[in-house]
Order: sequence, then structure tokens, then C-alpha cells
Amino acid sequence: MIKIALPDGAVKEVQQGTTAIEIAKSISEGLARNVISAQYDDTTVEVTTPLTHDGRLTLYTWKDDAGKKAFWHSSSHVVAQALEELYPGILLTIGPAIEKGFYYDVDFGEHTISEKDFPKIEKRALEIARGKHDFKMRQVSKKEALSYYRQQNNPYKVELIEDLSDGEITFCDHSTFTDLCRGGHIPNTGFIKAIKILNVAGAYWRGDENNPQLTRVYGISFPKQKELNEYLELLEEAKKRDHRKLGKELELFTFSQKVGQGLPLWLPKGAALRERLENFLKAAQKKAGYEMVVTPHIGQKELYVTSGHYAKYGEDSFQPIQTPKEEEEFLLKPMNCPHHCEIYKYRPWSYKDLPIRYAEFGTVYRYEQSGELHGLTRVRGFTQDDAHIFCTPDQLGEEFKKVIDLTLYVLRSLGFENFTAQVSTRDLDKPEKYIGETENWEKAEQAIIDAAEAKGLDYVIEAGEAAFYGPKLDFMIKDALGRKWQLGTIQVDYNLPERFDLTYKGSDNELHRPVMIHRAPFGSMERFVALLLEHSGGIFPLWLTPQQVTILPVSEKHEKYAQKVLNSLENHEIRALIDNRNETVGKKIREVEMQKIPFMIIVGEKEEEEDTISVRRHGGEDLGQLNVKGFSNLIATEINSTLKSF
Amino acid sequence: MIKIALPDGAVKEVQQGTTAIEIAKSISEGLARNVISAQYDDTTVEVTTPLTHDGRLTLYTWKDDAGKKAFWHSSSHVVAQALEELYPGILLTIGPAIEKGFYYDVDFGEHTISEKDFPKIEKRALEIARGKHDFKMRQVSKKEALSYYRQQNNPYKVELIEDLSDGEITFCDHSTFTDLCRGGHIPNTGFIKAIKILNVAGAYWRGDENNPQLTRVYGISFPKQKELNEYLELLEEAKKRDHRKLGKELELFTFSQKVGQGLPLWLPKGAALRERLENFLKAAQKKAGYEMVVTPHIGQKELYVTSGHYAKYGEDSFQPIQTPKEEEEFLLKPMNCPHHCEIYKYRPWSYKDLPIRYAEFGTVYRYEQSGELHGLTRVRGFTQDDAHIFCTPDQLGEEFKKVIDLTLYVLRSLGFENFTAQVSTRDLDKPEKYIGETENWEKAEQAIIDAAEAKGLDYVIEAGEAAFYGPKLDFMIKDALGRKWQLGTIQVDYNLPERFDLTYKGSDNELHRPVMIHRAPFGSMERFVALLLEHSGGIFPLWLTPQQVTILPVSEKHEKYAQKVLNSLENHEIRALIDNRNETVGKKIREVEMQKIPFMIIVGEKEEEEDTISVRRHGGEDLGQLNVKGFSNLIATEINSTLKSF
Repeated sequence: MIKIALPDGAVKEVQQGTTAIEIAKSISEGLARNVISAQYDDTTVEVTTPLTHDGRLTLYTWKDDAGKKAFWHSSSHVVAQALEELYPGILLTIGPAIEKGFYYDVDFGEHTISEKDFPKIEKRALEIARGKHDFKMRQVSKKEALSYYRQQNNPYKVELIEDLSDGEITFCDHSTFTDLCRGGHIPNTGFIKAIKILNVAGAYWRGDENNPQLTRVYGISFPKQKELNEYLELLEEAKKRDHRKLGKELELFTFSQKVGQGLPLWLPKGAALRERLENFLKAAQKKAGYEMVVTPHIGQKELYVTSGHYAKYGEDSFQPIQTPKEEEEFLLKPMNCPHHCEIYKYRPWSYKDLPIRYAEFGTVYRYEQSGELHGLTRVRGFTQDDAHIFCTPDQLGEEFKKVIDLTLYVLRSLGFENFTAQVSTRDLDKPEKYIGETENWEKAEQAIIDAAEAKGLDYVIEAGEAAFYGPKLDFMIKDALGRKWQLGTIQVDYNLPERFDLTYKGSDNELHRPVMIHRAPFGSMERFVALLLEHSGGIFPLWLTPQQVTILPVSEKHEKYAQKVLNSLENHEIRALIDNRNETVGKKIREVEMQKIPFMIIVGEKEEEEDTISVRRHGGEDLGQLNVKGFSNLIATEINSTLKSF
Repeated sequence: MIKIALPDGAVKEVQQGTTAIEIAKSISEGLARNVISAQYDDTTVEVTTPLTHDGRLTLYTWKDDAGKKAFWHSSSHVVAQALEELYPGILLTIGPAIEKGFYYDVDFGEHTISEKDFPKIEKRALEIARGKHDFKMRQVSKKEALSYYRQQNNPYKVELIEDLSDGEITFCDHSTFTDLCRGGHIPNTGFIKAIKILNVAGAYWRGDENNPQLTRVYGISFPKQKELNEYLELLEEAKKRDHRKLGKELELFTFSQKVGQGLPLWLPKGAALRERLENFLKAAQKKAGYEMVVTPHIGQKELYVTSGHYAKYGEDSFQPIQTPKEEEEFLLKPMNCPHHCEIYKYRPWSYKDLPIRYAEFGTVYRYEQSGELHGLTRVRGFTQDDAHIFCTPDQLGEEFKKVIDLTLYVLRSLGFENFTAQVSTRDLDKPEKYIGETENWEKAEQAIIDAAEAKGLDYVIEAGEAAFYGPKLDFMIKDALGRKWQLGTIQVDYNLPERFDLTYKGSDNELHRPVMIHRAPFGSMERFVALLLEHSGGIFPLWLTPQQVTILPVSEKHEKYAQKVLNSLENHEIRALIDNRNETVGKKIREVEMQKIPFMIIVGEKEEEEDTISVRRHGGEDLGQLNVKGFSNLIATEINSTLKSF
């Protein structure tokens, strides 16, 4: 008999050789039907693997990430079988599960494969799945394994096996298909009810461009057809909301090969959008007691030696800027904090002056590999909505709460409601890893947790995840498609005040070290605009959108009246443009819709005579004839309802 | 008899050997009394120099720059004589006139000289001057000259003489004093009625730091004591208005050795001032049809190869930024135009879309020698209020006029009224020097002149001063102290549209080249704020000043009422702060005055009871008790009267 401990604390005493699925059955038939994978101590096992010793067992269903992993890994076997049948002679290499689905890297030899082949692959894979073939692991000797794949003339698998030790090599069989495999499958192919081949791409064997190029076949599978349908819809929606696509359509930003990859050029509409966001945050920050500063985009080597960044500014970064003066070196600034520390030092401070809150829309530059660049979310130059708060250790808790208030206000005003937070604290077993006094750390960690608690944040605490210089709180948000985005961090810092020798005179007339808080609610203007685009699909809150109204005169003779309407709207601070191009009204209406302008105003004979405007909302709703005053009230009401008060 | 041509075209026929002063006498006794120097053909001569051949003669009085030069050069002889008498054994080197006054570089040997010695030097020099000693030039042989100074053990003069040819060496005598001198003196010392020694500084012999260090004695002199007094007052006023001093007092900006010389850090009040200036210009630019864009502060080498700047980015500049990728290079951007050209290229344009006006507060970086850095006027990083207009050749004239309108509006709103302009055109004799078609040049030059004319500018035309890529117009302004400042340029450019292959589709359906206009009314935010500080002495127009009001509660118990007043002012968009530090009201009032806050509001028992405020204007004027509404009307009226409408 062996003892098997379950996650809920229960311990089952069972016969040696009992399997995970049998244990599931002993709990409930329903559970047994859904269990598709398991973890035995620290190893992923098949649910049919005999358990041979005392240990911990976790059962996974489709709902668990580990369950999905087994599901998708198993699906890659099924797809590989289908590919072998459809394209005789192809050579399989590796086929893992990934975050969403799986892939298989295949040497297709003389065959080619394209999107039009996907349906037949899906069809055959699904036929195989329906056969409810068990996945069966078996151990093979190295000699046996090599001989199997040499017979198939598959140098890839041979190479993989050569790196393995005899005794640890396993094959997995199902139906007529056999694959070198470490394990981690669902019980049988019958669980797979829906399979979609998503795309094919080139991939080098073992990721090395000196090796042969293979074809990577991406796919995904689900236990229900409905789930696949939903996933494909989400994918379709995400494609429509891709911020790179929307940014181009809405003329917000562009890139130039000459200026350089990852260096966005903000077009007029994008620059106006960005400015509006900045002004919004500036106004909130002003109310919250922040002061704006402006600092240069470079700093002397000495600045970064003091901050400690110089040593970390390695070969994978933008390299230092030399000057005609020997030994003089500047760095393109990768962050704003050292500059703000130097501003803090321009005069002495008393405890009565604190907290001091310096804010800056500071543009920083960091070198990213070109392969990692992606639209506005991964760039080489970006503007942080940065601020640094210098306060006494006693003020930390209050300041932290205020930063959370500001962050929540800002994000909610932009239509985000779904937040979670992570509080990163010390590893209590390794006090030597951290700078700053233990007492201050305890105070700060407690202050952060109290603040998160007081503000009703949905948070988790991750011990040991704090940086060496202070604990922090990270915000995550879920967008309209349920995708998670990491947002700004609120970071406590005991290190820079030390390195820059920052002080204030306390009530005891002695000099003390202030604590620093780094924070950026948006993170960066670039990333945030990308997120906003993907979240909103380009339909911005009315207060934010660059152009709120397009005025369409039905013919040339109404242009003068259109101009009068425009002036009148501008007096009400409504952002409008007239479209008086020589195009049909029908075409213009379609274009306004495509540009996602919230309102269009049509003016013709009737409107001019009655001194009114005909208003249509984006999406088609007809608001009928209004006067400008009535329309302006309508806009003001809608804006006030979106812009939460702070 | 010889013929002497005068500047007014008259030709005098006179005896050979006649002097300039005699010719002046023949014109009028009054003129003769004022003539102090003269130019004979291309040489400066004494007014007593005999004229020996036909030639052109210009007579100078104190009013002419050349007259002042002779006056100050002569004064340096007088001061040198006084120094020799007061400090026996000193060695004289050189003593030229400079833009304002003169200096003499002296080897003082064992003597030292400091500010407390100035009065006795001035006194003795003035005594000498009163002697009305004639300045008499005489030719000496090289041998004679060397022997004279060898006897005095003066190696400096010996070295100077050794570089001269026999026959061209002259000495100038006056009173008991003799100096090696090329000439250019006033008739006698009696013209000098006021002398001031300004300061002393170290200076290396011949400017070479390997040579002995001399003492440079700076001085200035005038034909009337009143003029000296006025000059000293101006100097005193300029010192008070030094923007570096004011910037510190008003807490506008600071510098940090660690961040780097010439890289200003804008403090909260300075950043707010700057933002207000930017917003003011943005609003005007928006009305004028400009669109804002945002571009990065670096650009790839390829961008600057295309623009032609890469070749000019030499050893005296910030050096290129290398990256981990071989051959990849970025430059810190020295100007914004290449980026804006790349933005223009993001889509095709039709002639109907032009003009396109891209504006950006673009921060650029240029390496200046550390010795040339000066406050905010000469920096290494600065933000241009830049814009580039892309238009058809036919639109150039109209656009130019609009730019002048905008520039004049902006500068007048900031209290500048005294403008001049310079139009720089081609050298018609060297057409090969210029890019672009002759027809376009003619059109552009005429357009600029017409625009300057139409806008009533006080302008001069400088032929041959245009850049190779287009004609331009430069603005100069005189500040409150009469000092001239070069401001922004309006530059036509045929070159960059060519290099970047910019096009638009004309009404003929063919592709054409747009013309570009570069312009920046402020020039740069840094330089302009410096100018504004020196012009206004830190007393900004009310609309611009960061803090319009300080509220002073007379005691702690009125703080709550002060807070109520503050909120009420903020609702009227008045920028105010409460000073509730634990200091006496007297001290606080003095500080408000020093900070040049336009208004202070004092609230105590009486005000709180009557719900009013007591208002005092900067400078002391007591406006008595008002209510907040009345005060806000007063402020609104004053702002509207300063802010010209556009």
C-alpha cells in the first residue's frame, strides 16, 4: 500500500500501481470523466501511469492550465499523424503545447503546405480523434529508439535521441502513430472534439539560422466545438482591434525605416490624442499635488555611475555617446529617476516641505532586439507618464493610497474596470538581499498591503518578488477581450535616495533620508494608447477622441452655413471638422463611420432655413434635428458621465 | 592740389598735406569740434594726418562706431600712462578698443591690483586727460623701436616689433607717454571727460596658456560724465536682469554637474512657465492651421545620410550612438526637419491637401564647447518651437505672410515691440551656388520682400546672404535695455524636398515638389525664456506668470478663510498659493515682493467678517478691499489688454 496526498489535504491509502484516473474515480465518477492529466510529486504524468510510491497527486481537468497543456500536446500527436498520412515521407521534429494551442515543426521535403490545405488536415485529424485511441507510453532502449528513427531516415529525431540517456527514453503510441515523447497526455484522442490549424510559418531546426528551415504548423483544439467557435471569434475581433491596424486606419502613428524601427512618429491625430491624455493626467496630478518638471534626454556618465545604472548599461543597450572632449560620455536616458533626484538636490528641504512630487512626461530610450519590436507595445523610444514622490517614511502609507486613488481614477475614466494587483514583498529568509532598514521594509510592506486593502483592490502577495531596493505593487488589467495587460507599477525605493545622498531636515533638526516612490499609471503613452486601441476597438471615450464631429454639407451651397455651425461648435469647445471634399454624401458618411467619429452633422436646405443641425451618432442612431446649444448640452452630459470626478 | 571725395558725393580740391580736421573746419566749425577720427580710403587715420593723394575721406564723431573705437583706443593709452605712473616697472603689452570700452593687458610684476585700486587709477587718468595732450604719431625704425623697449626690459613689445617690417613701425606720443601703436586716435586727451575701470581678469600673453599670465584691465570712457552714469546704470540693470540670476531667484531652472553642463533642468515654476508659453503658441498655431506631431529624439544614420547632415556631423559634435547590431548607428537629433519630412511621406498628397503645417516642440541636441555655454542662451539641449510648412510654389507668398503675422502676434503678446528684419537673398553673380530653379528663387525672394513690405516690417535686404537651399528672413528684437537679440528665422528650403523625394500630385495629375518653410517664432524655449527674463526683469505678463497671487493670512486662525479664498480664485482660473508658514507677515510680504508675484492678498479679521480680500499689487500699490468677483474681473481685464487678439 502507498499513501497519496491530495491538494485538499486528504491522504488516500491505495494499492501500489493504482493510477490517477482510478483515484479520481474513487472520489467521483464526474471527476473521473473530466480528469485529463495529473502531476505526481513534481512530474507531469499520464492519468494511466501506475503510482509506485508515497507522494503528492494533483488531478487536472480542461479548466486547469496544466490540463490544457496536456490536451494541446496530445492534439499535436494527432495532427502529426494526420500530416504523415496526407504527406507521406515528411519528417517530424518537435511538437509542443504553447500558451494558446500547439505547433509541430515538420520537414515537408518536396511537399508544400498552405492555408487551402488546412481543412483537409483538420478533417483527417478529427477522424483520428473520434477513434478514441488511447495514448500509451512505453520505455525503449536508446539503441531501439535510434534504430527506429534511422529506419525512417529522420535525422532530427536521431539527433534528439542522441542527447538523451539510455533508460530515460519513452515513445508514445496511439492508433497507428508512434512518437518520441516525454509524456503528459490526455487519456485518449476522443476528448478532442474540435481542431483548427491556425497558420504555418518558417522555423529553423533548433532555432538556429544555420540549420535547415522547417515548417511550423500552428493549431489549437478544444473539448467542444462551441469553445473553438468562441475562440475563433475572439481571434477575429482581436485582429480587427490590432492597434497597428487601427493606428494606420485612424492615422494616429506611423513608422519610418529611415528614422528607425521601434521609433514611432505620431501623426497629427495621434499627437492630439496623446496630448489630450497627457492633459487629462496633468489636471488630475495637479489636484493630487504633483509638480511638473522637464529634464533632458541625455545624462552624463557620472549621473549613471551614481545611480548604479552605468554598470548595467551593457552591450545589449544603446551605446554611450562620445564627445570631442576626452573621457566625456553621455547616455541616452533609459529612465527619468536620476534626473529627478538631481532636481531634488537643487535646494535643501525640511520635513515640512515633504512630500515633494515631481512629474514628467519623460521620453526614454531602451534598445530592444528588432525581432521583439511590436507596434506601440514594444518600442525603442517611449514616453513614461512618470513621477517620483519624495516623502518621509511616515508619509509612505498615505502617499501609496493617494497613488492608488489616482491610478484607479485615471483608468476608470478611460473605461477600464477589471483590475487585479500584485504586492511584491521581501524573501524573509534572505534579509541580506535587500537595501534599507528592516523596520522601514516592514513599515512599507504593511503600508502597501493596508493601502491595497483600504482601496478594495483584488490583490495577491508574492513574497520574495520585491526588487532589492524596495517592495512594490503592480497593476494588471483585463481588456474588453479578456486579455491581461501588465500596467504601471508603484515602486518603493530606498536605494536611489542613498546613492544620490538625498536628505531632508527632520523635526529633530537632523538630516534624514527621504523614501522615493516611482509610479506611472499609464506605464508609457505608447503602450497605453495601444492598449486603449485594442480595448476600445478605436472607439474612444467622447472626451478623448481627437475629432468628435464631422460636418457634412449636402451640397456646395451649404458650405457657408456649415462653417457657421463649425464656429458655433468651437465656441462650445466641441472638436469638429467640415468635410467639403467633392465626393458624394453617401461616400462621406461611410468614411465618417469607418473613422469612428462619434457624431456626424448633416446640414442642407432644411437645416439652414431652420438654423438647426441633423445629428447621427456613430453606429447609425439618428438623433434628428437639434440646435447647436441642444447638441452641445448632449455632449457635455455624455462627457461628464464618463469622466469620473477626482 | 589733391581731390578728396566725401561720403555725400562732394569732392573737395585741397592742398596736398591738408588734414582731416582742416577739411572738417572747411565744412563747419561745429563739425570740426566733434570730429575725432577719420578713414582715408581703406585706412583709419588720425584727424591730424596729412592727406597726400586723391582719395575718399570719412569723418567720424563719437556717434559713429568708428569714432567710439578711436575714443576708447586713445583712452587705453591714457589709462596705461596712469598705470605706469602708479605702478612703476610694470610692462605694457597690448591695449585695444573693444565693443564696449577697451582693455590693456599688463604684466604687473610684483604689483597686485584689485577693485579698491580703481578709483585712484581713474583719478590719475582723468587728470592726464584734462591736460589736453595731443596724440602724435611718429614713424620709427625697427632698430630704434627694439632698442627703446629693450631698454625698458619689455620682452612683449620686443616680440611684437620683431614680427613687424621696418618702415611700418609707428609710435604714438602724448604727454610723457609713448607706446608702440598703429594709430587711430582722437586729436587730444581733452575729449575724454569720464573714465571708469570696470574690472580686472587674468589673460595669457597672446591667448596661449603656455605663456605668462597677464592682468587684463577693462575700462570704458565717455565724452560726458552723464553718459558714463547712464552706462553704469544700464550695466547695473543688466546685472539685475541676468537671466541666470533671475532663474535662480524665481526657481525656474537649475543645472547639475552630474547631468551635464548646458543641459537645463526645469524646476516646477519654470516648467509651468514654459508650458504656458507652449500652450499659448499652440493655440495660436491651431488657429493658423498647424497640426502638432511628435517625433523621437534620435534617428538612424540613414535618415541623416538622406538629409545630408550625416556628412556634416563631424568630430566637434555629439558622436553617433552604436547599438548591438553591427553597422547600425543612431544620431541624437540636431534638428527636427528630417523627421517631419518622413512624416510627410506617410501617405500621398494632392495639391488640394496643401499647405500642410507640422509643428512640434522638438528637443534637439548640439554639442557646444563648454567655454561657450551660458545660462539658457547657449546650451547643449534645447526645445525648438519648430514647424515645417509644405506648400506649392504658388502658396509660398501667402504662407510667408501668415508666418510673419503669427510671429508678430506672439512676440507682441509678450511685450516686445521693437523689431527689425533682414531678408537674405542670392548672390546673383554666383547662380551655381544655389539649388532649385531660378524661377522659383525669384518668386520666393519677391514673395519674402512683398511679405515684409505688406506687414510693415523694418527690414534690410542682404544679397548673397541666403543659404544654398533657399532665401530667408531673420527677426531681430531690441529688449528693454536696448540690447539686440537674434530671434527665429523663416527659411525657405528647396533642398530637403529634393533629398527626401517629397511630392504632391498637381492639378495636371503630375507629381511636383513641394516647397518647405522652416520657422520658429521663439527660436527655442530656453533662449526665449532667457530673453523674456532679461527683457522683463522677471516681471512677466500677468497671463504668463506661474503664480499670479500669494494669499497671506495674518494669523493661523484665518487659514481656513484663506483656503476658501483660494478655492474661489481657482474657480476663476486664477493661479494662487497660500503662504501659511510660521513667519511674520512682514517677512512674507518682503518675500512676495522679491518673487515678483503680481498680487498679494491679505486676509484677517476684517476681511473674513466682510467676506472680502485686501489686495496689493507688486510694487506696493494698495488696491484696498475687494470681493473675489471684483478682483477676478480686474485680472481678466488686465490679461485681455495684454493678449493681443489673433
